[in-house]
Formats: sequence, structure tokens, C-alpha cells
Amino acid sequence: MSFVERREKIYDWMAKEGISLLILEDAEHNRDKSVRYLTGQPGDALVFLSATRKCLLVPWDVNMAALHANADDVLPYAKFDLNANHAAKAAAAYFKTPYGGRIETPARTSYPAFLKYVENLSDYDVLCRNEGARAELERLRAVKDADEIRLYRLLAEKTNEIIDLVEKNVVDKTLKTETDVALFIEAECRARSCEGTGFQTLAAGPTRSFGIHCFPSYTAGAFADKGLSILDFGIVLQGYSSDVTMSFARAPSKAQERQLQLVEKAFAVAYNIVAETFKGKKPEAKIPARDVALAVDDFFKKEKCAMPHGLGHGVGLDVHEAPYLRRNADAHGHIERGMIFTIEPGLYDPAQGGCRYENDILIGEEGAEILTKSKIVRL
Amino acid sequence: MSFVERREKIYDWMAKEGISLLILEDAEHNRDKSVRYLTGQPGDALVFLSATRKCLLVPWDVNMAALHANADDVLPYAKFDLNANHAAKAAAAYFKTPYGGRIETPARTSYPAFLKYVENLSDYDVLCRNEGARAELERLRAVKDADEIRLYRLLAEKTNEIIDLVEKNVVDKTLKTETDVALFIEAECRARSCEGTGFQTLAAGPTRSFGIHCFPSYTAGAFADKGLSILDFGIVLQGYSSDVTMSFARAPSKAQERQLQLVEKAFAVAYNIVAETFKGKKPEAKIPARDVALAVDDFFKKEKCAMPHGLGHGVGLDVHEAPYLRRNADAHGHIERGMIFTIEPGLYDPAQGGCRYENDILIGEEGAEILTKSKIVRL
Repeated sequence: MSFVERREKIYDWMAKEGISLLILEDAEHNRDKSVRYLTGQPGDALVFLSATRKCLLVPWDVNMAALHANADDVLPYAKFDLNANHAAKAAAAYFKTPYGGRIETPARTSYPAFLKYVENLSDYDVLCRNEGARAELERLRAVKDADEIRLYRLLAEKTNEIIDLVEKNVVDKTLKTETDVALFIEAECRARSCEGTGFQTLAAGPTRSFGIHCFPSYTAGAFADKGLSILDFGIVLQGYSSDVTMSFARAPSKAQERQLQLVEKAFAVAYNIVAETFKGKKPEAKIPARDVALAVDDFFKKEKCAMPHGLGHGVGLDVHEAPYLRRNADAHGHIERGMIFTIEPGLYDPAQGGCRYENDILIGEEGAEILTKSKIVRL
Repeated sequence: MSFVERREKIYDWMAKEGISLLILEDAEHNRDKSVRYLTGQPGDALVFLSATRKCLLVPWDVNMAALHANADDVLPYAKFDLNANHAAKAAAAYFKTPYGGRIETPARTSYPAFLKYVENLSDYDVLCRNEGARAELERLRAVKDADEIRLYRLLAEKTNEIIDLVEKNVVDKTLKTETDVALFIEAECRARSCEGTGFQTLAAGPTRSFGIHCFPSYTAGAFADKGLSILDFGIVLQGYSSDVTMSFARAPSKAQERQLQLVEKAFAVAYNIVAETFKGKKPEAKIPARDVALAVDDFFKKEKCAMPHGLGHGVGLDVHEAPYLRRNADAHGHIERGMIFTIEPGLYDPAQGGCRYENDILIGEEGAEILTKSKIVRL
């Protein structure tokens, strides 16, 4: 789907909702990848979508926009003193937004910033809501189109190449420290034309793997020494990130081996539910994302252990996006055809260390499919 | 200053403001380094500070908190289903917050989330404001204490070692691509016990240096080839980041050489104002941060060019924090003794490429001091 086609869908939604002007913002403290989804602009910009079905982009860096962005018009943010209210006021005038018209501000607009919008746009009806444009864009983005699915297949291929290389180089001890492993991934992904890693690679050797997300993300300390090590990484192609976690076990104790097997089984429990749901080609098949998470919670409970984090999440322009496979997720959040998400059970123990096993799953037309080939490597 | 001493300052402020309970949150979409500033917890947690001068930490990862955090009590976020409203309600009860008492929520709480707080904390007077705790913490954090200044001297030393190594290795062509340079910095900083880089290193070879912040941050493309290249990086020690920008010019054209010289002169214009202001030991010396930025704008204007970004910013637990040296900054934002901030003039041209020159400045007891030794390297 082109940027123009995506915007058409939003214009349709705006018409239905009676929105005259929709404001989106991607800023340092308020990232919104929908700006990139709708215009291609990779970051730091305001987007104004009008009921007149036109799009105005107000980027921080106009040179960058000239290279990446698609919009009906582009005005530099500096023109408005980098002030969102000034830009919004100008955009409302630019589009001849009717007085009293509904202007929707970004859902994550802070309460004090919202009051400023209301003050500055006093001729209009100013909204800010969770169940508005942000939720609609979340739904749109969660279901990948044919181009996005093709891109994810390519991304998975590159991710899998790196998984294999990491395994090989850890086995033959070319990669010895957490930093070795993390920088190897950085170099390998950029050599494959990736934009970079989707988040700071988490490489936790045995002394640090007890943490869900180790801190710092990697150090000069040993990786894949005796015990359990975790390697959580993703690589980014055209903005879209993969997300996988490998675990490494060197001479695991009996208790550690049990931990590994439980995590492997939990993955199978989750994947089997998903695979079963989407068997055959029924386009209407779906399942509440929460139910998959709850099944894994039950599995762990029976084994007298517990997972301290969610089971998985959609991947896309955000590394974490809908659907959310969590026990506390909205009951209306479903897994549907076209979605790509992680399944990532993990168990952590301050004494034994931790392990996690994570792959990216596509619900394609033919059914569920594990795109990435992450591994628990026993050394 | 210890975490306890920092919290004492906030308790004093709360007493003055009549706040019964203060909520801070560091979350994926709403980072707040004040959580780390006040408790040492590096991320993903809620902090509740009570008028009873006690602090409750609610972290996502309790194992991590056991290792890093200082608080009077710690309760796992999972206990509240990772729901900030549930945690806030429990904290208000835990501290026996008086009915009708003022509860201040994070200043960046979104408008819809604020409405939820109000609904869930209906027995209390719930606030969300820009000029509240966030502003107070911003002011506190902007003036570094003796420990923080010592840390920054050490951080500058490590940064300068890396600057020298990068120069040497670019000159002798050991580092040839953007990725080479960026990963060299990653490896060198972690080898020096740093937590990592403060932000994605921006390494822009001549074909990409026209962008203020190149995108992607670094690629497999050539670095320091004929023309202008920019290298913007920072390294992190105990949470605090440095921030420097080197530029490299290989066989610059006359126009490019002029660009370099203007940027060097702009740096001197800014630094001289600051140095003059803080000459001698007058503890009360100060200057509006905006004035320094405006002086540089004037300088560039006279030379018939313009800088498309701010002149500088404070550094600390956030790479960008107060003071803000920008033409559109609040007139009340001053540079004072104890502050550490960048001066980073830059000029960018789609045809010629760009250059930027950035160092970290300390306003110490003896006066202004350039801590880092960034360079414009002519090859």
C-alpha cells in the first residue's frame, strides 16, 4: 500500500468521525511511527491531515523530508519557531478548516499541552482521545499488507543469517564478550542494508541473565560462559523491525535444563494454539490475543513457576505494537490474518539466571508460520 | 548528593507546594530520568513520593531494582497488573494520603490518561502541570553537584580518549565506513566501563552530511571521503552522557572551507560570551541561555547564512536537558554556575554537505571550561 493509499483510509475514517483536521506528531519525547507510516518521513515532524483529503508535513529537517517524505505540501518546522501550537494554528488556516470543526490532537498529548492546544485553537472543537485516530492507526498498522509481508520475509531471512552466524561464532569462541556479540550484530545488519538494530541489543552473560532486560544492555563481560545467557535483538529494514531472542546454555545444571525445557514447551503451547486457530484458509478466523497469553500462564502455573512479563507483541514500525499477547490486554484485541507478532516465553531466577526464547510469527493466508529461526543453543 | 538527599529536596518542595503524593513514571513511551535521579533505578518504574517523606518504588523488574535502586519500599509492578492507576490507588492508601490531598501526576501524562487518574483517585485533588514537579526536578538536575562534576570530568577524559583514537584511525584509514566509526566508539566506550552511547551515533559521510541528524544514523557507506563528514556521539557513565560532534573535511572546496570557519567562529562567539559572564568567582553570575543563542544567530545572519537548529543544551541523565540555548527558549532559563551544556553550531547545505562542531562546557567555580576536546579535522 502506498503512503497515499494509507492516507486515503485515514481520510475515510475522518469523514466517518467528522474530523476536520487530524494532527500527528513525532518528537523526541513523543515518538509516533504513524508519521512514517503515512508519509515516509522517518522522524521529528508534525503531520496535518485535512478533511479536504490533503496532507501537510512540517518536518524539523526539510532536507531529510525532500529525500524521504511523501506529502501534498511541506513547510519547515522552523517557520513556526518549533512550536506545535503555532504550526497547528497555521495548518488550520491553510486548510480553511471551518470554525467549530473538530480538530483531533495526538492521543499522547500531555494534559498541559492539550490545554495549550485548546487555548490556541479556540475557534475549533479540539479533541484528544485514546479511542480515536491513534487506535485506528494501531488497528491499520497491526494488519500487514502484501508489501509489508514481503518485506518481513526478507527481514526474517537477514535475521536468520545473523542468528546462524552468531551461533557459529559463539560456538567457536570468536565472540567471547557481550560487546563482541552485540557489535557483531550491529555490523552484520548494516552490511545487509539494514537501518540498524530495532532496539539496544540485550546481551546478558550468565551473571546478568536473571534480569528480564539486562542493564546495561551489554558490557565487556563474558557471554555464553557456564550457565545461562540471553541475546535479544532485532534488525530494521525500511523502518520495520524483527525481534528475536536466543538463549545459550553452557553445561547447564539440572535446574537450568528444566528452565530451558519449560520455556521451549511454553513456546509450543502458544504456537500450537495459534496454528490450530488459523489452520485452513478461513479468512474470518481470529482469537483474542489475551487467551494465548493466559494459556501460557496456566502452563507455567501448573509447573509451579511464573513468567514476569507478557507473552508477545506485534512487530512493525514500532518494535512493540498491536496485537498485545498479555494477560492484562484488552479482551477485544484479537490476532487476525496478516498480523506479525512475537511469542517470547522466559523464566528468570536470581540464582540460576534466565532464559528466553522468541520468534516472529506471521499469520499468512495459508496459516501460521514461524518466520525467524531463533534457537536455544546448548554448548 | 545521595538519592536520599535528593529526595529530601523534593520533600521540602512538596511541603511548600502542599503536595501529599507525587507520582513519577519512567515507561517505554514516557521516559523520565528523574526516576533514576531520585532512586538509582535505571528504568521502567513508578515512583511515589509522600508528604510523610517516604518513597515507594514500583519497578517492572524487581531483580533489577534489588541491584540498583534506593527506596524506602519496593513493590513489583506486576502486583498491580502493570496498571499505573491501580498502583497509584494502592500507593495513596499505603501512605494514608489524606482525603482531598493533592496528588501530582507526571507532567507528561496524556490527557486521556490524566482523566483516568482523576477517575481512579476521586477521593483526592489530582494535578498535572508543566510548572510543577517536572520543572522543579529540571531545575535541580540542571545544576550539577560536586559528585556529578567529578563524574563529568572522568566522562570527558574517556570521551577525549575516544576522540583522539577516532581521529588517528580515520587519518590512517583504519576506520573507513560510517559503521566502522560508530562501532569503534561502541566498543571503546564499553571497554572503558561505560553503559554505552548516549544516543545512536550519527556518522554521516559526505553524501549524507547535509542532514542535521542523518538517517539512518550510520550505514556501510564511506566516511571521511572527499567533502564534509559529521560524527556526533556521546558516551554514558552511571547514566550521565557526554555529547560531542567532530567534523572531518577532506580536500574541502573554498565554499566548504568557509562553512567550517564560520562554524568555528560561531563556537568562539558563543563560548566567549559565556566565559566573559563567568569570569572571576562571583557566585551570582548568570545569563539567559537564549541570549547566547541569539548572539550566534546574529553572527550567522551577518554572514548571510542560518543555523537550522538550537545552539546547545544541558547534558546529564538526559542527553537533552536544561539549560536550553535556543532562540525560542523561555526568557527565564539562565545559565548558572554548576551547569554543564553543549555549544554546537552547525551549517548544512544540500549541495556542499554539512559540518557541526560541539563540545561540553562546564561552568565551574573558577569559571567556564571546555571539558571535551572535539575537533574539526582537515584531512
